[in-house]
Amino acid sequence: MGRRAADTPAMSQKQGKQSVTAPAGFSAAGGAFGIKPSGKADLAMIAADRPCPVAAVFTRSVLPSEAVQVARRHAASGRCRAIVVNAGVANASTGKRGLDDARAMCRAAAGHLGCKATEVIACSTGLIGEPLPMDRITHGIGELAGRLERCAEGDDAVAHAILTTDLVAKSAVRRIKLGGKTVTLGGIAKGSGMIAPNMGTMLAFVTTDAAVSLPRLRAALREAVEADASFNRISVDTDTSPSDTVAMMASGAAGNAPIRRADGDYRRFRDALVDLSRDLAYQVVADGEGATRVIRVTVEGARSHPEAVRVARAVVDSPLVKTAVHGGDPNWGRLAMAVGKSGATVRPGRLVLRIGGVEVYREGVPVAADPRKLERAMAEREVKLTVRLNIGAGRCEYLGCDLSREYITINADYHT
Amino acid sequence: MGRRAADTPAMSQKQGKQSVTAPAGFSAAGGAFGIKPSGKADLAMIAADRPCPVAAVFTRSVLPSEAVQVARRHAASGRCRAIVVNAGVANASTGKRGLDDARAMCRAAAGHLGCKATEVIACSTGLIGEPLPMDRITHGIGELAGRLERCAEGDDAVAHAILTTDLVAKSAVRRIKLGGKTVTLGGIAKGSGMIAPNMGTMLAFVTTDAAVSLPRLRAALREAVEADASFNRISVDTDTSPSDTVAMMASGAAGNAPIRRADGDYRRFRDALVDLSRDLAYQVVADGEGATRVIRVTVEGARSHPEAVRVARAVVDSPLVKTAVHGGDPNWGRLAMAVGKSGATVRPGRLVLRIGGVEVYREGVPVAADPRKLERAMAEREVKLTVRLNIGAGRCEYLGCDLSREYITINADYHT
Repeated sequence: MGRRAADTPAMSQKQGKQSVTAPAGFSAAGGAFGIKPSGKADLAMIAADRPCPVAAVFTRSVLPSEAVQVARRHAASGRCRAIVVNAGVANASTGKRGLDDARAMCRAAAGHLGCKATEVIACSTGLIGEPLPMDRITHGIGELAGRLERCAEGDDAVAHAILTTDLVAKSAVRRIKLGGKTVTLGGIAKGSGMIAPNMGTMLAFVTTDAAVSLPRLRAALREAVEADASFNRISVDTDTSPSDTVAMMASGAAGNAPIRRADGDYRRFRDALVDLSRDLAYQVVADGEGATRVIRVTVEGARSHPEAVRVARAVVDSPLVKTAVHGGDPNWGRLAMAVGKSGATVRPGRLVLRIGGVEVYREGVPVAADPRKLERAMAEREVKLTVRLNIGAGRCEYLGCDLSREYITINADYHT
Repeated sequence: MGRRAADTPAMSQKQGKQSVTAPAGFSAAGGAFGIKPSGKADLAMIAADRPCPVAAVFTRSVLPSEAVQVARRHAASGRCRAIVVNAGVANASTGKRGLDDARAMCRAAAGHLGCKATEVIACSTGLIGEPLPMDRITHGIGELAGRLERCAEGDDAVAHAILTTDLVAKSAVRRIKLGGKTVTLGGIAKGSGMIAPNMGTMLAFVTTDAAVSLPRLRAALREAVEADASFNRISVDTDTSPSDTVAMMASGAAGNAPIRRADGDYRRFRDALVDLSRDLAYQVVADGEGATRVIRVTVEGARSHPEAVRVARAVVDSPLVKTAVHGGDPNWGRLAMAVGKSGATVRPGRLVLRIGGVEVYREGVPVAADPRKLERAMAEREVKLTVRLNIGAGRCEYLGCDLSREYITINADYHT
């Protein structure tokens, strides 16, 4: 088990890896129940052995899905026994029927697990505007409740069952020592399109066996979601889903002295959670619809942190930057354009722009850069763009991906 | 000449139509001087017979081009003898050298026309970060000053010389009667990519022979730029150019009683300018990079006008809405998603969504719409999306275009 502590993004892409049941106190199951027309896996359940603290962050859409409206209320109780997720139909813009369906999903799971319906969080992702096929879902929930297990195969089934246009399943595990006890965090995520950074982007579910108070769990999740290059700092296509949810349960089964204050244990726990969140977020942008390259934008020296975020978003969301990266074209004029449209405080006489390690613009004047070095920097699997404003201390790191013909194919050619 | 008063967008696409010299008191010339590598026309001059009132609106980029920095200062004087425009190189992010070059362009034109350098507005569009080829430009300015004329061919040469990735030249003419005198407005525009609605988008130049005071001219231009479906209400790709400029000169040669107050004559003049601006703006989005369809988004019943604009922008800029329109897919869930991500005040129980004339969502519930009617609405050359929020009186109309593989080809495959 100790070897797992060195999990890397590369390792976590492997098939059949334990994730949400890696922490003690959880079991999981997933399978195909005919919700997706493709016949692929489409229903998942992650259960805690008993109701435990839960923290969750939801979409900031002003038209959140009916699934999110119910889940937000249930998560507010701070206690959760299970998370149930279906893919294929988002239960969004479905009105009263959708609210009833989300509650029925929770009641069905609660009936099988012997808990309250409000101790279940039900999530849905997929097509907007269609009603859930409730007969298939309630049947599936019964099946999964009887199949819950703690193993790599179960976790893998769960990670696959929440996918939509994703090409690969996304999972990550982290282990830390707290007062001599090993604490484990496991997580899975989905997300490939409709990914933009105005919330707890996409779906991600994290489990931990840490003993941690509800206020500390909520604080750690909020910090992890907002961390550099984490869930709220990625963008595939600027579009914001009405279903986005990040939820985390803490079983306490690790037996560590409960984390109740913002002390050293809390910081170690939070840092592991930030690290795990970044790993999952990276996997989401790397699997962005049609993506062939990851774009990492680093903004330094902005007047404030919000201004740094503003600049980074303008760059990472610019279709002209994204197509330049796709074409491997070191067109730094587009980078300057995006900084310009951000509306942040910029003094051209202090501005420095870099592609990879190569400076292309310094203090109001273009720099004659070696074209071969620039071509190499643009050919990397991860293209690094740096904007140094030299005005203040605001800093931010954002992840995005390139824009390809394949994105158009995925989103224009396949009809609903 | 009287027949021209009925100019329509269709008519104004015709080759060889008079535009900026249709109003009395102006002449123009354009030609190819080797600024564009393609050898196409790349330099234009629009001259008033004598210095006259000028109003201009520029990019809101925080990194405006060096060309814009100089032009903004010259336009602030309120008097202008000529506008000189080159395409191919944007004179943006070029530092002190770029400022010097922009001033040298103005001095060269002033020398030939016998006016002050500050009475010339020099505009540049094209590649960012490259210096202007000043020898070719000053040579070309001399040539054009000797060729100024008042005719369809001259205007056509000007309309073509300001283009970059545009496929067609864009021009429009309007005529109105003010106190028995015929007043004419003529305009040209360029713009195809890097078009987003945070300013006087792209390049557009308008002439009129109306006698109008400088404050009224400025007020009318500001109103025209911000009008529904006009320059500030269009988006091709969400990206904002550092070069965008709309400038308008008024020669007074029509002999109307000068417009000095916000009276009936002012409103008639402004309405004609709004109408002409919308015509040019429509031509810009219809010629958007890779565009095959225009998207017209109408938002009604928003809490305020700014909230209506926010919703309309979220819809028109959404890559998932744009690709759905490209694919002819009546996926109204994406329309709901975009409304949701806008952050505006939305009550699902009052919301109505329409594609073409077909209602797809009403007061919190999907509407079972006739699929054939929806397919037809999505197959139109102009796809109409309506969002009725039923909360307040905020209203806005925005124009955009679809997102196609061709956009990727234009912006990823052709290297700088």
